[in-house]
Amino acid sequence: MIHQDKDLGALFLHGLADINFTEHAIAKALPKMAQAATAPRLKQALDVHARQTETHIERLAQVFHLIDETPVQEPCDAIHGLILEGDAIIDEFAGGAALDAGLISAAQAVEHYEMARYGTLKAWADQLDLREAAVLLGETLAEEKKTDGLLTRLATERVNPQAAS
Amino acid sequence: MIHQDKDLGALFLHGLADINFTEHAIAKALPKMAQAATAPRLKQALDVHARQTETHIERLAQVFHLIDETPVQEPCDAIHGLILEGDAIIDEFAGGAALDAGLISAAQAVEHYEMARYGTLKAWADQLDLREAAVLLGETLAEEKKTDGLLTRLATERVNPQAAS
Repeated sequence: MIHQDKDLGALFLHGLADINFTEHAIAKALPKMAQAATAPRLKQALDVHARQTETHIERLAQVFHLIDETPVQEPCDAIHGLILEGDAIIDEFAGGAALDAGLISAAQAVEHYEMARYGTLKAWADQLDLREAAVLLGETLAEEKKTDGLLTRLATERVNPQAAS
Repeated sequence: MIHQDKDLGALFLHGLADINFTEHAIAKALPKMAQAATAPRLKQALDVHARQTETHIERLAQVFHLIDETPVQEPCDAIHGLILEGDAIIDEFAGGAALDAGLISAAQAVEHYEMARYGTLKAWADQLDLREAAVLLGETLAEEKKTDGLLTRLATERVNPQAAS
């Protein structure tokens, strides 16, 4: 991709590198969260999302390819912090009735981070007329939103009532 | 509030302390972002949200009061990381056409973090039958969503086209 320094193309590439780091970090964190979860449906949801994350990484590789760039990762303090918070919940609430509710909370904070990033990247791809890239980013965005909705339903219908009982 | 250790009441208090720290951190970060922004409407939106943040802090104090707790703050790695990313955007893209687009991206990541946290806290308050607390948390959640929508419109209608031109 041809772009001037500090323009929207540079920002797009910066954002791609950030979310690529994020997805790789999440791919490592999700199986740990699934293992810590006690409700079988939550374990399953986190495992399914771990597999989806591999697809998200492949889509990002395609987006890098579409703009003639090699996939790179930019270390991202935010996802590091979000994952640390998830670890803290596991440490603090292990063995307690609210562990699963805490895990869902941590997972939804990660989902929202990704929804913000993919929403922005899709808007930038649209603006830059990178139509194929925008479609790929939109597909992942839709999956993140779906996972977030699924976790909300799991929390309100099953996990929270159990944690409060 | 009476609760057993590690139950949903404990998790709710933990979450309140986290978002209270977050809101105080955002109250300091937003004026810096508003100062860095170049588009007058973006400056204004960030300034308005900085003032809203003060209201969010007051509402949290009311929620702590409703459960007979003193407002406390739990340092939160995630918001620290999100704010660092905003600072990095300012440093890297200052003077460039894409600075405002980058600032909106950083602000929306913060909004999404708050939407995740307030959504969870409201669901927990509902589950714990803390109705007044749920209303207060829902009011702030609605404002965070509104701000996120405003930033999306600002980005797609004005800031992104300018950054790409």
